[in-house]
Amino acid sequence: MQFPFDVISAEEYDRQRESYVPLTDALRRLIDAGIHTAVDEATVAQALAHLSAATELLEGEQRTATSTLRHADTGRPLAWANPAVGLRNAIAPPMIIQHEADGTCWSEFTLGPAYEGPPGWVHGGICALLLDHILGEVASEGLNQPKFTGTISVKYLRGTHLGRVRAEAFVERSEGVKTYARGYLKDDEGITVEADGVFIKPAWARDAG
Amino acid sequence: MQFPFDVISAEEYDRQRESYVPLTDALRRLIDAGIHTAVDEATVAQALAHLSAATELLEGEQRTATSTLRHADTGRPLAWANPAVGLRNAIAPPMIIQHEADGTCWSEFTLGPAYEGPPGWVHGGICALLLDHILGEVASEGLNQPKFTGTISVKYLRGTHLGRVRAEAFVERSEGVKTYARGYLKDDEGITVEADGVFIKPAWARDAG
Repeated sequence: MQFPFDVISAEEYDRQRESYVPLTDALRRLIDAGIHTAVDEATVAQALAHLSAATELLEGEQRTATSTLRHADTGRPLAWANPAVGLRNAIAPPMIIQHEADGTCWSEFTLGPAYEGPPGWVHGGICALLLDHILGEVASEGLNQPKFTGTISVKYLRGTHLGRVRAEAFVERSEGVKTYARGYLKDDEGITVEADGVFIKPAWARDAG
Repeated sequence: MQFPFDVISAEEYDRQRESYVPLTDALRRLIDAGIHTAVDEATVAQALAHLSAATELLEGEQRTATSTLRHADTGRPLAWANPAVGLRNAIAPPMIIQHEADGTCWSEFTLGPAYEGPPGWVHGGICALLLDHILGEVASEGLNQPKFTGTISVKYLRGTHLGRVRAEAFVERSEGVKTYARGYLKDDEGITVEADGVFIKPAWARDAG
């Protein structure tokens, strides 16, 4: 389970980002429009024709996705396709994670109708997805160290309002191959969800130190 | 936090389902096509024009989503917009949950490139999202009883292969306002992730018995 990677130059990164990020943002708007649309059958058929044409265009050339892309300058994996943080995955809010000098991570982003569970509130499982990701990222030093989630416990203090939220995470301690991380999700009224996770360095990476 | 609901007739349910589910399925294919597309700028621009036209069409009439729809015959909430099980939310795989007579729940479905974390494997947070949902559904008797997640612990035994997976859940025991549920995610080689959750009947629903 050792993952291969390719390096992408800063220039090529900027080119792809400029070209593909607006496409993903347009898809996010379309997902939202689709969830609660009440248009008639004829209008749905017209929309379907556009979706089909767009799909055919985008499937014209596909990147072989068997490896992780790393940025030439930062060395960091891009995680462009990631369902929590991927700039190129319309499922991701995306959560754009900031790495502080002290190793902590945080992100502020908006959760719209696509992430709704009970009316007006974020689905609890979406909170778990996002906290799992940010805890994993803080534990693996920005995905630079191979680490896998062993266990994660998520405690719901109260509902999280849809809208602007903040996620944050830090490492509590490390013991041998285990790293203990903790994090929070907050809405405009404070902490709504707490998470604790144990992340483990896989056996194949242990000899490398 | 008491949620209002509207009833939808069986006939209207069928009509809406027939009209909107193909739209959501087309969006799922489009999300996948977008993640790894490598087409040139001019082709992206053509695709964007189609997405923009489709969004405008679908935004032409939107359902006011301040209430939960319940099916007139079954009484069950539709959860059409739900990010785990929603037939009308392109973010959802969707996980279509089967309810057995003994109260257990299960679902078999496919996780494609939109749910990928490390190359070839399901993102751990996606496993947490899906298990949180199915445990919540088994604990609330198919979303018929108001129950909120108190805590959920997710234990990753190994990576989950992208592709066909199975989720299952059952109630271990109930004590007063608390229901303890447990579940698993399995790929073609067996159990990959275990989850235990405590679900709590909210204060406002306790008097109702």
